[in-house]
Amino acid sequence: MPSPKKAKSANTMWGGRYAAGPSEIMGRINPSIDIDKRFYAEDIAGSLAHAAMLAKQGIISAKDHKAIVGGLAMVKAEIEAGRFEFKTALEDIHMNVESRLAELIGPAAGRLHTARSRNDQVATDFRLWVRNAIDTLDRAMTALQAALLDKADAHAGAVMPGFTHLQPAQPVTFGHHMLAYVEMIARDRGRFADCRRRLNENPLGAAALAGTSFPIDRHATARALGFDRPMANSLDAVSARDFALEFLGAAAICAGHLSRLAEELVIWTTPQFGFVRLSDAFTTGSSIMPQKRNADAAELVRAKAGTILGAFTGLAAVVKSLPLTYAKDLQEDKPPVFTAFDSLELGLAAMAGMIADMTVNEAALRARALAGYTTATDIADWLVRARGLPFREAHHVTGRIVRLAEERGCGLEELSVADLKTIDARLDQAALDVLSLDRSVASRTSFGGTAPKNVRAAAKAARRKYLGKAKP
Amino acid sequence: MPSPKKAKSANTMWGGRYAAGPSEIMGRINPSIDIDKRFYAEDIAGSLAHAAMLAKQGIISAKDHKAIVGGLAMVKAEIEAGRFEFKTALEDIHMNVESRLAELIGPAAGRLHTARSRNDQVATDFRLWVRNAIDTLDRAMTALQAALLDKADAHAGAVMPGFTHLQPAQPVTFGHHMLAYVEMIARDRGRFADCRRRLNENPLGAAALAGTSFPIDRHATARALGFDRPMANSLDAVSARDFALEFLGAAAICAGHLSRLAEELVIWTTPQFGFVRLSDAFTTGSSIMPQKRNADAAELVRAKAGTILGAFTGLAAVVKSLPLTYAKDLQEDKPPVFTAFDSLELGLAAMAGMIADMTVNEAALRARALAGYTTATDIADWLVRARGLPFREAHHVTGRIVRLAEERGCGLEELSVADLKTIDARLDQAALDVLSLDRSVASRTSFGGTAPKNVRAAAKAARRKYLGKAKP
Amino acid sequence: MPSPKKAKSANTMWGGRYAAGPSEIMGRINPSIDIDKRFYAEDIAGSLAHAAMLAKQGIISAKDHKAIVGGLAMVKAEIEAGRFEFKTALEDIHMNVESRLAELIGPAAGRLHTARSRNDQVATDFRLWVRNAIDTLDRAMTALQAALLDKADAHAGAVMPGFTHLQPAQPVTFGHHMLAYVEMIARDRGRFADCRRRLNENPLGAAALAGTSFPIDRHATARALGFDRPMANSLDAVSARDFALEFLGAAAICAGHLSRLAEELVIWTTPQFGFVRLSDAFTTGSSIMPQKRNADAAELVRAKAGTILGAFTGLAAVVKSLPLTYAKDLQEDKPPVFTAFDSLELGLAAMAGMIADMTVNEAALRARALAGYTTATDIADWLVRARGLPFREAHHVTGRIVRLAEERGCGLEELSVADLKTIDARLDQAALDVLSLDRSVASRTSFGGTAPKNVRAAAKAARRKYLGKAKP
Amino acid sequence: MPSPKKAKSANTMWGGRYAAGPSEIMGRINPSIDIDKRFYAEDIAGSLAHAAMLAKQGIISAKDHKAIVGGLAMVKAEIEAGRFEFKTALEDIHMNVESRLAELIGPAAGRLHTARSRNDQVATDFRLWVRNAIDTLDRAMTALQAALLDKADAHAGAVMPGFTHLQPAQPVTFGHHMLAYVEMIARDRGRFADCRRRLNENPLGAAALAGTSFPIDRHATARALGFDRPMANSLDAVSARDFALEFLGAAAICAGHLSRLAEELVIWTTPQFGFVRLSDAFTTGSSIMPQKRNADAAELVRAKAGTILGAFTGLAAVVKSLPLTYAKDLQEDKPPVFTAFDSLELGLAAMAGMIADMTVNEAALRARALAGYTTATDIADWLVRARGLPFREAHHVTGRIVRLAEERGCGLEELSVADLKTIDARLDQAALDVLSLDRSVASRTSFGGTAPKNVRAAAKAARRKYLGKAKP
Repeated sequence: MPSPKKAKSANTMWGGRYAAGPSEIMGRINPSIDIDKRFYAEDIAGSLAHAAMLAKQGIISAKDHKAIVGGLAMVKAEIEAGRFEFKTALEDIHMNVESRLAELIGPAAGRLHTARSRNDQVATDFRLWVRNAIDTLDRAMTALQAALLDKADAHAGAVMPGFTHLQPAQPVTFGHHMLAYVEMIARDRGRFADCRRRLNENPLGAAALAGTSFPIDRHATARALGFDRPMANSLDAVSARDFALEFLGAAAICAGHLSRLAEELVIWTTPQFGFVRLSDAFTTGSSIMPQKRNADAAELVRAKAGTILGAFTGLAAVVKSLPLTYAKDLQEDKPPVFTAFDSLELGLAAMAGMIADMTVNEAALRARALAGYTTATDIADWLVRARGLPFREAHHVTGRIVRLAEERGCGLEELSVADLKTIDARLDQAALDVLSLDRSVASRTSFGGTAPKNVRAAAKAARRKYLGKAKP
Repeated sequence: MPSPKKAKSANTMWGGRYAAGPSEIMGRINPSIDIDKRFYAEDIAGSLAHAAMLAKQGIISAKDHKAIVGGLAMVKAEIEAGRFEFKTALEDIHMNVESRLAELIGPAAGRLHTARSRNDQVATDFRLWVRNAIDTLDRAMTALQAALLDKADAHAGAVMPGFTHLQPAQPVTFGHHMLAYVEMIARDRGRFADCRRRLNENPLGAAALAGTSFPIDRHATARALGFDRPMANSLDAVSARDFALEFLGAAAICAGHLSRLAEELVIWTTPQFGFVRLSDAFTTGSSIMPQKRNADAAELVRAKAGTILGAFTGLAAVVKSLPLTYAKDLQEDKPPVFTAFDSLELGLAAMAGMIADMTVNEAALRARALAGYTTATDIADWLVRARGLPFREAHHVTGRIVRLAEERGCGLEELSVADLKTIDARLDQAALDVLSLDRSVASRTSFGGTAPKNVRAAAKAARRKYLGKAKP
Repeated sequence: MPSPKKAKSANTMWGGRYAAGPSEIMGRINPSIDIDKRFYAEDIAGSLAHAAMLAKQGIISAKDHKAIVGGLAMVKAEIEAGRFEFKTALEDIHMNVESRLAELIGPAAGRLHTARSRNDQVATDFRLWVRNAIDTLDRAMTALQAALLDKADAHAGAVMPGFTHLQPAQPVTFGHHMLAYVEMIARDRGRFADCRRRLNENPLGAAALAGTSFPIDRHATARALGFDRPMANSLDAVSARDFALEFLGAAAICAGHLSRLAEELVIWTTPQFGFVRLSDAFTTGSSIMPQKRNADAAELVRAKAGTILGAFTGLAAVVKSLPLTYAKDLQEDKPPVFTAFDSLELGLAAMAGMIADMTVNEAALRARALAGYTTATDIADWLVRARGLPFREAHHVTGRIVRLAEERGCGLEELSVADLKTIDARLDQAALDVLSLDRSVASRTSFGGTAPKNVRAAAKAARRKYLGKAKP
Repeated sequence: MPSPKKAKSANTMWGGRYAAGPSEIMGRINPSIDIDKRFYAEDIAGSLAHAAMLAKQGIISAKDHKAIVGGLAMVKAEIEAGRFEFKTALEDIHMNVESRLAELIGPAAGRLHTARSRNDQVATDFRLWVRNAIDTLDRAMTALQAALLDKADAHAGAVMPGFTHLQPAQPVTFGHHMLAYVEMIARDRGRFADCRRRLNENPLGAAALAGTSFPIDRHATARALGFDRPMANSLDAVSARDFALEFLGAAAICAGHLSRLAEELVIWTTPQFGFVRLSDAFTTGSSIMPQKRNADAAELVRAKAGTILGAFTGLAAVVKSLPLTYAKDLQEDKPPVFTAFDSLELGLAAMAGMIADMTVNEAALRARALAGYTTATDIADWLVRARGLPFREAHHVTGRIVRLAEERGCGLEELSVADLKTIDARLDQAALDVLSLDRSVASRTSFGGTAPKNVRAAAKAARRKYLGKAKP
């Protein structure tokens, strides 16, 4: 139940009608410290870089600099030890840190704020945070690729039905299927890397919006913080949030890829499909129905793609049509980014875990490929190519072969040459060979095709390209 | 900075590559207690209703019932006193409550779960919570209407430029403008009320998905919980989340209305417009620039419309394409609803506060209406109607009047009859009257029009209709 | 390939750099006639109502009125005969109709525009159109309910596995599953009906924004157009688009329901599940793989839920933060509504067709329910209830029964009493009865439960409630 | 009004209730030709590359190749001349082209389809189309940058109020403001360029999903079509749509930037601000209110940011959770991409036109900067720096200066030294200099700051970097 708000002031004009006074409401809507305290490390790193530059440029004294460095180290230690009291009255992480610094070192704390503003400060913190987030996600994506590659190697030749429209279409190998996701995640890593490169510019020194008359060195703070360069325009520096949107867009697309694989896991683990078995760790089971293993983690990963999409949409709507430069609307930029990061980081870890832990039932894969008559197109193609039948006639003959297998309740490759001869005299052992699942996949040797030797080569290449190393 | 995860198990197949073991990841992704503990009151209310019904139907003993009632009261008291330890290992609010109940009353706690499941339990909790949320929001919307109506009454005759395309178009009154929002909020209240009515059905007793063979009485639990009736289909009861989406849709639309008013406040409080002055409570100012009053609260309200839109989008994407019945994806349904409620409730309170506290600068409103030549269309219409000029000629004459005022640097109504005569002999005192802002608005007497007497009548009617009472 | 734009003017300052002159660009971005011509019937209906009222009020002459009525009939006939030339230069449907009317009847056409504006005119057209759209959708939703009810009746007792997490959980009946969707669609109909009721107010007479000084009768035009009343505030009348958003929200939720059923059809029609067979009309097949039936229509229905969600999101972002009153942004309101309507109307028709045409494989449903050991919870419950075992022991015994069936490769109800006795002496014929699928579903007689007699009664009640008639 | 569908078949089971038969519905929902005919050039280009490769590899004869080349040229010519009849019965652009080719050249047409499928064909067409779209957009973004740079150069020293929270904060120059958008668009161009690079891989040759046994050369078709390489995995090649999402994400972000500038234009063109005047071409005016210039084009650009966001959201929801490989859901991928491209291309052109055509009112800019006391922070800083006042006292003195100017109704720099002395004896000519708008902006010489010399240098650098050339 939404908790009732206690009336704290009933003597304002409108307080009598509603439950709280103006300042109580402002005290609830305005502060961001509950959210942005997550920036503490970036905020302190930014302040250290700023202070060093101010000292180098002679804007503050060496003594003040030293005091600031020492004080910020204490603040950081307090926060990390859980001994720091975050105060809502101080609104945000910047003021909380600065206020505590002042308590610790006195007036020098105030001089730290020379030639900067909360506007460029929060932009700096946010960019640093997102940069770190991308690095964390890159590791998580790489781990997922590694898990997929292990499975690709282990099942490079395991025949399964390849699906279109979720209907068995042609045989492929399980390894090939795993590699499809390796490619998707590779592009996701590329998107995040591009986002990182683009955002890696230094807003610090833009001050409130116009730059400053102090003789600061923005290149120095850029170097100190690992930025490639200062941002070229101070108005842009404090207004821009496209980096956050680009991050969310990349996250939404990556989460979409995870959702596709999660959906496959949910379907593959039904007793009807039975393609794979997830480990106990990633399922919830039932003590009385041993076959029941709910793919909870896969479902959660699938759902988080929705949540992350909502984060992108929300922030895009927030920043739409905002005049320059800073507006308080931008305070709503952090929750969606935090939500998306947490969801994606967890989703990647869960997916890497599920893939690494899962057991692949190669027999079931093959049985489904057989039952799906997935080599029917192979025989039709062969009749055209090897026997010179017109396409239409080839299809007709193929249809009769499939019906025969259906009547027999067997797979196409389980028919005999004699069986085939009853349908058409031109069918012989070569035809039967074409109906073999293994022959079918082995024949798909076009670049990127599903032939096991291709799959092994592709996995090797991917391992080198994406993991930077050969198979362990 | 995204906090690094400590490696807890490196001996799993994939653990060496990534930072945490499977169970650690599952322990992070699977539990919902951090979120759904907000349902504690609803969960306990549902259990009380269920227990009473079970006892009435003879499914549990009166003694067990009594123990359950007492135990649940203790659990609730512990939670509200902040003495309850929520355990992640127990996953969700249902298990946390039940487990504690078992500690308090022993085996009778287990019998409470007869003929129900977490699937119907969470559906019940969620519906109760949203129902309460709607009631809270209705009060907040009513308070906003009241604040708007007060301002409408106070400035029913205050002439301001009415805008199209943010360009002054025709004079209207400030009260009329306020009433436009009263109407929007009225429709918002209607949408929430419809949502409430539609969701007010009892899922309890659907059990896991199929119903139960116990002789339960779902009508009794419905009555006890204030539901209008039991849900008609058990599969639907545990799968449906359209009530949450409808809530989010109504919230997104309402927040959109607030964002329009917030945008107007931001524009109106610029020194260029200067239409209104927000109170100190809802702005952040500057000790050195007394005129600077940043409309922070308005900006935050404006932004939250984006956040709430993202909540709708996210959940809609989550539930899209989910097969029946319950899937773990549905665990992602609560955060967007909580976010949307908190944002909207706060946004409504902030807006009601801003409106109630703001000072309207009637002189500035009038000056802008004058400067905007907003009665130009009145004179053109009058020339057609009263002097029989063809429309084209009337426009030509009007254009010359406006240009004369422009040259003089005055408003249209500040011209003299002699001035008008220099343009066209047919212009006289009656023409000059038409150019008056007050005459203009007074003439708009069509139903719903801006004439002050209409505005006063409309405010009175709205007060009766929406607040259920006359002006205090 | 995006078609290259021909440079039409290179002599403007920026034309040399870009491909087209200012007026060419404005000529492309500004007009809406390609979109809003779809309003022609509503626009003409609105004009007829307006003209009749003007005549009644003595604002135009009876002769002019007659000429207008005749002229508009001609215009409408030309449009419907495909003989009307829509001109982009005339921007929108209002000007296209009015301009043609002037050609046909001369100056009287100009008098039609007395006391109205394109601002209230487009609001009126749009509301009328959405109202009609809702009526069309209501018929389509009813048809879908009818198709579902037919299947529910036909398979009221057909046992299938009920799923949670897409894992077989407990037996339910196919009819019960169909009825779950009947309930969802019923709520969808309710949402649209509420939207219809709320939007059914007359904006006409709000004029540009402020109302008018002409003695119009807005109640009369409201009656003539089937509106319940005039809108109460003229500023609101020309600015409001919440009716379009509410329509899109209802459409997004309804489409989400369809997507759930579509997903089930896609899964159910895999050879692995084989629950239902769609008709040829709604699938694409393969001449060589007779078992392959791609559920194309279901996939398209599933996808359209995404498209419609995008329409809601897009429009919500468009109207966010727009100051009153009319702004040109509102021109972007129609495409999402048209897209959503077309998609939903088609999706409902396709779904009704698929459901009506599909063949249900009752044997496959039963076989899957058997194989899924879906009555395992029934026997555990029975052991508690009938034999007084503690829950833990009951689960243990049940686990052993399931394992025995697994080893035998049979369903639980295919075990014998002797088999059961090998596990626990307390198991007898009554226990075996509990393991029966039919007994299981028959026992779920709680209100809304899956017992076939409940399903039949629920279908009958739904038919009466939602279709307004008994089974044909 | 939604047009009524004519009943074409009433004899189906459900046809009696609804308006159309199954095949009529499927005929409406299934074909995509109305949409994908826009791919005709890409489809033909792909076929030409494929045919050349097939001939080179000896898979088809040189004669067939020649016939195909000639036939496709004819088809293309027919389409471009408007003489091609697109047939819905042939579903899509691929079948329409192939079918016409068969009419023109006979059986050789059929051999063109060797070793490919519509699955890889549509993926190829779509990538080519998006690549072209990006090239078109890059030209449009460059043109906008050029227009902004022209204005930046022309008004590099024009002082205006810099805003935070839409409140005047500190003086900046108009040129500086223009350059902020040059930077945003530069990042937009970077995002599209990254998207282009990532999508520029060849799916052709993936065939239906598994690759092919024909000895094709995917590197050859890649080269012929300007792709950097073949896609590495055939399953991925036919399933991936992340390129479309990335395109939409980049478009949504870019459109968001345009919406911010559009919002500023709407506000800047109000009589209250009067900062700029748009040309007649991009406004709609009023013959009777010469000052009224509705910024229609800016409003439309602003709105299209919403529409494009909806396109991203919609497609992201469509592809969420789709199992591999091709599913018919993917047919819903093109409309959002087309809508986004058309909207953005037009929005960029309109914005470039508005910027190029607009007249900047430097006097108004300066007047507003004066009236906004935007140099108040400069004097406070100066008191700290030059006179050594503690910050608190400096603020106090500054507040008194501002109040004095307020009372006088003048700007800060319009005060005299004598005036200042009445406030504090330490204020002198140097203080007065600090209050000067020009001095203020000139002092902001930090990198990226607003000093006119910085702005000129930044514009020059941007011109070289982004336009690849010096100022004309």
